[in-house]
Amino acid sequence: MYNIHIGAENALTFPAGFRAAGVACGIKDDSRDIMLLLADRVCASAGAFTKNNVKAAPVIYSQNIVKSGQAQAIIINSGVANACTGDEGMHKCVEMAQTTAENTGISPDLVLVCSTGVIGRQLPMDKIKNGIGIANRALSVNGGHDAALAIMTTDTHPKEVAITLNTSAGIVKIGGVAKGSGMIAPNMATMLSVITTDAQIDPEILQNILSRVVDRTYNCVTVDGDTSTNDTVLMLASGVTNIRLEQGTRDLAIFEDGLLKLATELAKMIARDGEGATKLVEITVAGAADSKGAATIARTIANSPLVKTAIFGNDPNWGRVLAAAGRAGVYFDQYHVDLDFAGTPVVRNGQPIEFNKTAAIQAMKTKEVKILLTLGEGAFESTVWTCDFSYDYVRINADYTT
Amino acid sequence: MYNIHIGAENALTFPAGFRAAGVACGIKDDSRDIMLLLADRVCASAGAFTKNNVKAAPVIYSQNIVKSGQAQAIIINSGVANACTGDEGMHKCVEMAQTTAENTGISPDLVLVCSTGVIGRQLPMDKIKNGIGIANRALSVNGGHDAALAIMTTDTHPKEVAITLNTSAGIVKIGGVAKGSGMIAPNMATMLSVITTDAQIDPEILQNILSRVVDRTYNCVTVDGDTSTNDTVLMLASGVTNIRLEQGTRDLAIFEDGLLKLATELAKMIARDGEGATKLVEITVAGAADSKGAATIARTIANSPLVKTAIFGNDPNWGRVLAAAGRAGVYFDQYHVDLDFAGTPVVRNGQPIEFNKTAAIQAMKTKEVKILLTLGEGAFESTVWTCDFSYDYVRINADYTT
Repeated sequence: MYNIHIGAENALTFPAGFRAAGVACGIKDDSRDIMLLLADRVCASAGAFTKNNVKAAPVIYSQNIVKSGQAQAIIINSGVANACTGDEGMHKCVEMAQTTAENTGISPDLVLVCSTGVIGRQLPMDKIKNGIGIANRALSVNGGHDAALAIMTTDTHPKEVAITLNTSAGIVKIGGVAKGSGMIAPNMATMLSVITTDAQIDPEILQNILSRVVDRTYNCVTVDGDTSTNDTVLMLASGVTNIRLEQGTRDLAIFEDGLLKLATELAKMIARDGEGATKLVEITVAGAADSKGAATIARTIANSPLVKTAIFGNDPNWGRVLAAAGRAGVYFDQYHVDLDFAGTPVVRNGQPIEFNKTAAIQAMKTKEVKILLTLGEGAFESTVWTCDFSYDYVRINADYTT
Repeated sequence: MYNIHIGAENALTFPAGFRAAGVACGIKDDSRDIMLLLADRVCASAGAFTKNNVKAAPVIYSQNIVKSGQAQAIIINSGVANACTGDEGMHKCVEMAQTTAENTGISPDLVLVCSTGVIGRQLPMDKIKNGIGIANRALSVNGGHDAALAIMTTDTHPKEVAITLNTSAGIVKIGGVAKGSGMIAPNMATMLSVITTDAQIDPEILQNILSRVVDRTYNCVTVDGDTSTNDTVLMLASGVTNIRLEQGTRDLAIFEDGLLKLATELAKMIARDGEGATKLVEITVAGAADSKGAATIARTIANSPLVKTAIFGNDPNWGRVLAAAGRAGVYFDQYHVDLDFAGTPVVRNGQPIEFNKTAAIQAMKTKEVKILLTLGEGAFESTVWTCDFSYDYVRINADYTT
């Protein structure tokens, strides 16, 4: 039914109707920092944005563009976030859109803008305008990988996923890129993600599907609890396959399921590549009275520095999981919980049970640690992905701007 | 009007009518782990306890004792928290109270119990019962310092403060000890604190005063956002001065102010001695629409790993402060904020302003860093104390139980 390529190169330009580029304009010292995505025609667009009350200029700007349901280009710079930059920052964001429009020959109203990097610094517009020109000349159907590289900040590798879906009318493709990797928490979890498809789909339908998928994927990732000022997911549907996905059809369900799979993989890549991370941590809270409560508890556990450092140190100090769960603000009876820590049953019905500590430590020495907390309150569950907390997280973040 | 002794030895036995001891019974490898406080007569008692939904057995037990408004002894062990220990843990907690009552010759209903240390482990009762006997024999009016030592876990030093107050009827004394230093967040911020006074005061009045003071002190400290399962503040008033503090009197106001000063110093000592801390960080949010909102924003900034690692690294990356403030869930207009970071004005009316980076870095190289965020929403403010986030936090917590 589908074919997924995790780590596929050129994922963004895998669907038909898109060209992309990732070039270096000198914002960052020695790496690509401008990404341009251009569609052959006007696309249906959808987006999901940070819920942080302090929003970067491009978030405010692109939220407004997305409302139209149309877009044809996405311009992104890394290195400077254009957040907390006042009126000057908004003027520069508009200038980024206008420069992109002039270079690509489309209307400025069809250009979405993102920025990521240091907060509180103004964009170096000469470099960026020059970079947009270079990117426009570099646009290519093979430019997806360069684009994925250009949006990275402290990521250790680009994140690309492509998927092929068999609908009743033929093959539809979706491609996505994402970047992390600190200042990441629901909502939104990713700092930036761009997704393309060659399916034909109404903007309202696309927006609904994207919102649902984002809730179950990017919003279930947390690295450090710090929701960014810039988090954005943007999606463009070129429609060049002429395969139209109508509301209520089986094909649309296949499409949503495919998008969910793609976004899940990107979300897990973000967690796995969290700043300083050595492990992916999957936290499931089951047996909850409702799914919102389950998610709140799972996120509180996921953001606990004490839980995360214990996992880094392969220390089966499971009491910290219950302590974090208890402070989530969601009631449960502590005398009715079960806990499995990295596959080791440690609590049953609220009572600690004996376990082989040497074996438990050994079980933690893996790249993926799973925690399962089962409450005795109901039938709902939620899963959140995070990473451990290492010396390197401190090192990376102690001298980010100096 | 008052005389405060920060770091005073024997603070707990500074007020008249108390004896204390801190001894080693072998729960911890090589240090004191049993603290006993015994008053000469039945005291008025008050307490404040963790709001974590997962409560240690001694929290549930002592909450119930405090309701009576009376107590005469406090028994505390460090090393094992007796949290997440099911029915067996509660039986052992009751046994601690009973053993203390037998040794001291008072009713078990007058014994308050606390535990602190690793969660999920059962108490070694043979050692503890033996230790209670040793502590009882060691009780002394000079035992306050040993008591302060016996409640430490990862604290690097004991925390003791004593204060002398001049009331219209004569001198009243208050003494307090506290221990941190990880798994600390509102509410409660301290893991454990015990306060004594020789004033005479009704239990209901004492409880009201203590609750107000705790809200403005211990509940304004956060080390890592992890509210413990065991956090407890207990206060005993022996009344042996026969100076009775009545509701609505100036003497009672002097007493409350003195208790506030004492608790503020203990709270700041806890923040300064947070696990791996190299600096005390004071975060004030002013110009808020209400004090609750101000406190929520201040705590969110204080718990941000990105803010805390930047302060550790002397990196004036102030954008992280605004990003954290924005995700606190309290509305403010980002275009009307002022921010001073370690004394350097960095934002005025939502616009970043130029500052000398070298000087700003230099200004951060101090033991106390202050952050002042002024919103343009109202006249309320709140201050929270925390510490920076260092390599040592990770080291201490990566192998706590192994």
